[in-house]
Amino acid sequence: MTHIAISVGEPAGIGPDVTLGALENQVSQDLLLVADADMLETRARMLNMAMDFNRISNPAQFPDQVQEKKINVLHTPLSRESEPGQLDPSNSGYVLECIHRCVSLCQEGKADAMVTAPVHKGIINDAGHAFSGHTELIAALCNVAKPVMMLASERMKVCLATTHLPIVKVSQALNQDMLIETIRIINDDLKRLYNIERPTIGVCGLNPHAGEGGHLGDEEITIIEPAINALRSEGKDIVGPLPADTAFAPHQLRQLDAVLAMFHDQGLPVIKHNDFGDTVNITLGLPIIRTSVDHGTAVDLAATGRANSQSMSAAIDKARQFVRNIAK
Amino acid sequence: MTHIAISVGEPAGIGPDVTLGALENQVSQDLLLVADADMLETRARMLNMAMDFNRISNPAQFPDQVQEKKINVLHTPLSRESEPGQLDPSNSGYVLECIHRCVSLCQEGKADAMVTAPVHKGIINDAGHAFSGHTELIAALCNVAKPVMMLASERMKVCLATTHLPIVKVSQALNQDMLIETIRIINDDLKRLYNIERPTIGVCGLNPHAGEGGHLGDEEITIIEPAINALRSEGKDIVGPLPADTAFAPHQLRQLDAVLAMFHDQGLPVIKHNDFGDTVNITLGLPIIRTSVDHGTAVDLAATGRANSQSMSAAIDKARQFVRNIAK
Repeated sequence: MTHIAISVGEPAGIGPDVTLGALENQVSQDLLLVADADMLETRARMLNMAMDFNRISNPAQFPDQVQEKKINVLHTPLSRESEPGQLDPSNSGYVLECIHRCVSLCQEGKADAMVTAPVHKGIINDAGHAFSGHTELIAALCNVAKPVMMLASERMKVCLATTHLPIVKVSQALNQDMLIETIRIINDDLKRLYNIERPTIGVCGLNPHAGEGGHLGDEEITIIEPAINALRSEGKDIVGPLPADTAFAPHQLRQLDAVLAMFHDQGLPVIKHNDFGDTVNITLGLPIIRTSVDHGTAVDLAATGRANSQSMSAAIDKARQFVRNIAK
Repeated sequence: MTHIAISVGEPAGIGPDVTLGALENQVSQDLLLVADADMLETRARMLNMAMDFNRISNPAQFPDQVQEKKINVLHTPLSRESEPGQLDPSNSGYVLECIHRCVSLCQEGKADAMVTAPVHKGIINDAGHAFSGHTELIAALCNVAKPVMMLASERMKVCLATTHLPIVKVSQALNQDMLIETIRIINDDLKRLYNIERPTIGVCGLNPHAGEGGHLGDEEITIIEPAINALRSEGKDIVGPLPADTAFAPHQLRQLDAVLAMFHDQGLPVIKHNDFGDTVNITLGLPIIRTSVDHGTAVDLAATGRANSQSMSAAIDKARQFVRNIAK
């Protein structure tokens, strides 16, 4: 039996809402929610959801105490009662503990994948925890130096060579070795998670028109092309460097299993425009499977009933698909 | 009667093909093609298009010699016969002359708008002409220091604060004054060309998440926000700075008449993905109306019959719409 652990994220935000929303109309005995069970019960009542919870108090009791047709929760106590919409740094330790527990369950083989609801970076930092991001923490817990962020919808998969960097720092962050490593990870995980035998990966240039032969910047010539050539000599199927507005043009995109954008705003506006809601954030390069919603905590929507569970549903479905694919 | 002058562009590329293609099934007596008439007749034969041309030899004879139900051409002789697919620097002077003629016709009030097919920057430079771009040349001929590039489809309008700059140079190219001037131009031309009474303009941040409160870059705080505030104090309806992946999310985009991206690859991949083919390039800030196809010369497709006329048709339609709107 498959088990997927869900870290329900910041309790003052919409993490509980979208998690409960995604579970409302489906059998979910393959899912284990990692959160404060009292908070979840309260939130379900606030949202007028009739849900039947099964509280598991100790990770050691999982999966033995899982009950069919109930929502199974690995009860992880809050430090202080949480109010929807009110961020509280005293619960940041709890938020991190939920993530830790999910990673441990995966590492111990008790869970096959983990799915994460959003956390609030600012409040975790305010609480005094060194925390640069959800993905970075999970990677560190897995002893992985270089996770790769991918956003995937049914229509496209967009990976990022750099993520949350000011534009002025993007060029200096790129080098041949990191690009080669990044593309190897993408290639390996497209095979592992999607069962694509020989992935075709489109690599964007950094500059407009992919530098137009050096007239509009030279990183394509000095960094990106040599990296692509090295990967081709390993037998990998790499297309590029492509001008970003060409890479995402429909006739080109159809020929690519994934696109590697050089930076955040080169790739994400396209997928967020087209597939807002059903886009899933997937961390590549980990020894475990981790998918995530692609939205933030939206604290102003918590407990209002207006949060959209579509991305959480998609993240759960995608985790299930990966577990099946790996088993093949 | 409306007259729209069309600069047919690089003769070795698909400019003639898409222009003839756009005219094939429509009455076109409001259109004046500016090109070598022999070259057009030859290309029409190569493409198996039965077309009836009316050759006007001298701009002074326009519009008197326009004939109904024919394709009217202001004959502008090539220096050397042009071979489809074979770029020839000796015809670069001809390419520029076609653009000059269209601008003059507009300035003299003989044409109401101009539409341009693609030119090839490299071959024009190879011929020894100082030429930094189609848009820049037209702006210079109109004595305009700051044209603003906009790509428009039915679903969205995307303007660029910077165009063909290496990524490392984007930040230093931005300043409050240029942003204020750019947004004023966008605001004025949305009113003039689209008859939008009080345009709502979304302004992207430069950095991921629009800088996330200064954590991911400070240009939003030091440059973009002050520019927006100055424009708001003039009564303009400006939204931002918006994270680019939020600006293009459907629920946000629906509330904006146009989006200003800070750089090329922040905005163009979205519109090229969604509306490839029917996107029109529009130059804002000119005293004349200029629309253009959004594609290049694609010399390998010239005379093959495989060039798609959709963008040229859209550019002509858009020019006609602007002429009507301005007359309102």
